[in-house]
Amino acid sequence: MNTLFSNRILTTPKSFIREILKVTDNPEVISFAGGLPNSRFFPVKEIKSAALKVLEEDGRNILQYSTTEGYLPLREYISRRYFEKKRLNIRPDEIIITNGSQQCFDLIGKTFLNKGDHVVVERPVYLGALQSFSMFEPVIDSVPLLDDGIDTIFLKKTFDEQKIKLFYAVPNFQNPSGVTYSKQKRMELAGMLREQNSIFVEDDPYGELRFMGDDIPCVRNYLQKNIILLGSFSKIVSPGLRLGWICAEKETMEKIVVAKQAADLHSNYLSQRILYKYLVDNDIDEHIHTIRVAYKEQRDLMVSKIEEQFPEETKCTKPEGGMFLWITLPENLSSMELFNRAIKENVAFVPGSPFYVGGGGENTLRLNFSNSDGEKIEEGIKRLAGIIKKLISEKGGK
Amino acid sequence: MNTLFSNRILTTPKSFIREILKVTDNPEVISFAGGLPNSRFFPVKEIKSAALKVLEEDGRNILQYSTTEGYLPLREYISRRYFEKKRLNIRPDEIIITNGSQQCFDLIGKTFLNKGDHVVVERPVYLGALQSFSMFEPVIDSVPLLDDGIDTIFLKKTFDEQKIKLFYAVPNFQNPSGVTYSKQKRMELAGMLREQNSIFVEDDPYGELRFMGDDIPCVRNYLQKNIILLGSFSKIVSPGLRLGWICAEKETMEKIVVAKQAADLHSNYLSQRILYKYLVDNDIDEHIHTIRVAYKEQRDLMVSKIEEQFPEETKCTKPEGGMFLWITLPENLSSMELFNRAIKENVAFVPGSPFYVGGGGENTLRLNFSNSDGEKIEEGIKRLAGIIKKLISEKGGK
Repeated sequence: MNTLFSNRILTTPKSFIREILKVTDNPEVISFAGGLPNSRFFPVKEIKSAALKVLEEDGRNILQYSTTEGYLPLREYISRRYFEKKRLNIRPDEIIITNGSQQCFDLIGKTFLNKGDHVVVERPVYLGALQSFSMFEPVIDSVPLLDDGIDTIFLKKTFDEQKIKLFYAVPNFQNPSGVTYSKQKRMELAGMLREQNSIFVEDDPYGELRFMGDDIPCVRNYLQKNIILLGSFSKIVSPGLRLGWICAEKETMEKIVVAKQAADLHSNYLSQRILYKYLVDNDIDEHIHTIRVAYKEQRDLMVSKIEEQFPEETKCTKPEGGMFLWITLPENLSSMELFNRAIKENVAFVPGSPFYVGGGGENTLRLNFSNSDGEKIEEGIKRLAGIIKKLISEKGGK
Repeated sequence: MNTLFSNRILTTPKSFIREILKVTDNPEVISFAGGLPNSRFFPVKEIKSAALKVLEEDGRNILQYSTTEGYLPLREYISRRYFEKKRLNIRPDEIIITNGSQQCFDLIGKTFLNKGDHVVVERPVYLGALQSFSMFEPVIDSVPLLDDGIDTIFLKKTFDEQKIKLFYAVPNFQNPSGVTYSKQKRMELAGMLREQNSIFVEDDPYGELRFMGDDIPCVRNYLQKNIILLGSFSKIVSPGLRLGWICAEKETMEKIVVAKQAADLHSNYLSQRILYKYLVDNDIDEHIHTIRVAYKEQRDLMVSKIEEQFPEETKCTKPEGGMFLWITLPENLSSMELFNRAIKENVAFVPGSPFYVGGGGENTLRLNFSNSDGEKIEEGIKRLAGIIKKLISEKGGK
């Protein structure tokens, strides 16, 4: 049988995170591993009411096949919101509705990547995108993230050395690092990309989850050509609805529509109609505000407990939004070893090395703060701190 | 920009049928074009009630991320139904839930197809599968369908001449031809495939829509290795829910799960939960019976009107189930020309040639009978008959 599998599937690993998540199904486990939004804030009552209304009003159409591009009023809503929030002019016909933003990577890969094409990603990189792009057998190059975003000097060098087909980045509260690109960095990046014949994929699933500091324009605000902007309702409404979107220029969109037809004809129409009804019947900004306040509290608590209890040599990011902290342990410590010990004490997180293309990051790890309440954060960080200290003393540290 | 697109996307055409469907949005048009189930039978009230219940009972979990494989009770339901209806032993862990059966082709393509691999399809072939497989740049060979299924002699010859990676077929009420494989043909096919190191994809979206004759076992009943069986709820419950499934052996399923992770993490969870609730709270067999009775009436009417009004030289299949008739016009007539004339008289159908890989079928066409009521069937066939007669007389026929 092995001889029948495709090369791509033999070389693409299972999602490491989804494997970890199986362990964390045990309710005893305090999990900082997943990238899950907090289900406490899911608008269950409102979604139920929206479901009732749309099925009542238009049930027969809702249960029928629908258009590949997605429900037009929903695309118009996204278009309006971009203008109101970001001063971005993106027409509804430049938007296609997808099964969460994960599907965006698949459709983009299909539309642009030939085997052997060079794709540049951030180091560390979002694993879901990496896995999806890998299906199209590109060569993946990675460029380090600095505190204020991608290392543009390194990036320029990479572009000079290779013909780069596509560069993928998450400029807001990046997963896994929590890094946000500064305004200066975005303008610089846009300027550099303007000179290239490459596609820039700007992924923004967390942009609305800013809980401190000022909002920063998208790279899309500075770059109009060869850029694809991605968005998602998973973090602000619900991931179970599986709805995200791609914004792209008309010529690109025509190709993406073909890829979407071939992939699954169209996104779940019932979900699209329910979501749209929910969005117009409710105050989504107020809802997002509630999430932001809660996530800020959870982040603050996790950061303060880490500062209190983790050894001094440990570094921790303080992201202005999103769902993740990024921890750098002393150089000689392995986060994989920490993981193996922590799981025995029923604490889970994601070790950093899988996020590094071509190796590195062995002493780093990702902690999710959005999906744990205060008690779990306190207890989980306490246990992790204990194990880290033990590891340091075993390695002959101070 | 053109220089950036992938080879696969530049060579994959838009779905011809979905382009036609745009024309048929006009309510004046009598459309026999789409492959749409009749929305009259969608269980709107029952789906609404199921949606209410599941969101009431378990809303927070339903709106969260879920497992890649799909909702276990739904997979158990499918497993049980296979045993009850078909005496097939397919375990729940050999089933993954997909976004309709269209996504099955994509996941299978990813799992098996390298560029240049040979894929065999039926002639004529279901276009959705063809488009999806094309994304993986195989060489497509086609083998003629006879009245009782695939031409096994031609198929054997094709397997002898080439290393075939995958053979794709729709043995029940095939789309577009309406052909059903005889039991003898299925056994013969299974016997032949048992000798090959190839994957057989048995697609069965219409199997439950038999309205006359005896049910025939699946090829899967005769073949246990290297076979993938596909199913869908689109034709028996609702296509808007976008739920289908793949059955495959464990080793294959592990790879398909990776492909599904990369494609979109998991299928719509809200839909899965609603569907499962609907299935256990209602008598699905009674529901399917209602659809069968109605489709039989529609088929009977369409066939009798064709026999009455189409010129004698025209051939028409009489499928025992499914949703399509297949018409063969006199050899010198072009169904594309018929289409262009018919659309001016507000009647639509799908010309046959796109279903033929490598040319042919210019005098054939597909008529859908599931989605039109009696009045439209009578009027539409009357108009088509008039145009066909005119075309024949123009060509100097009798």
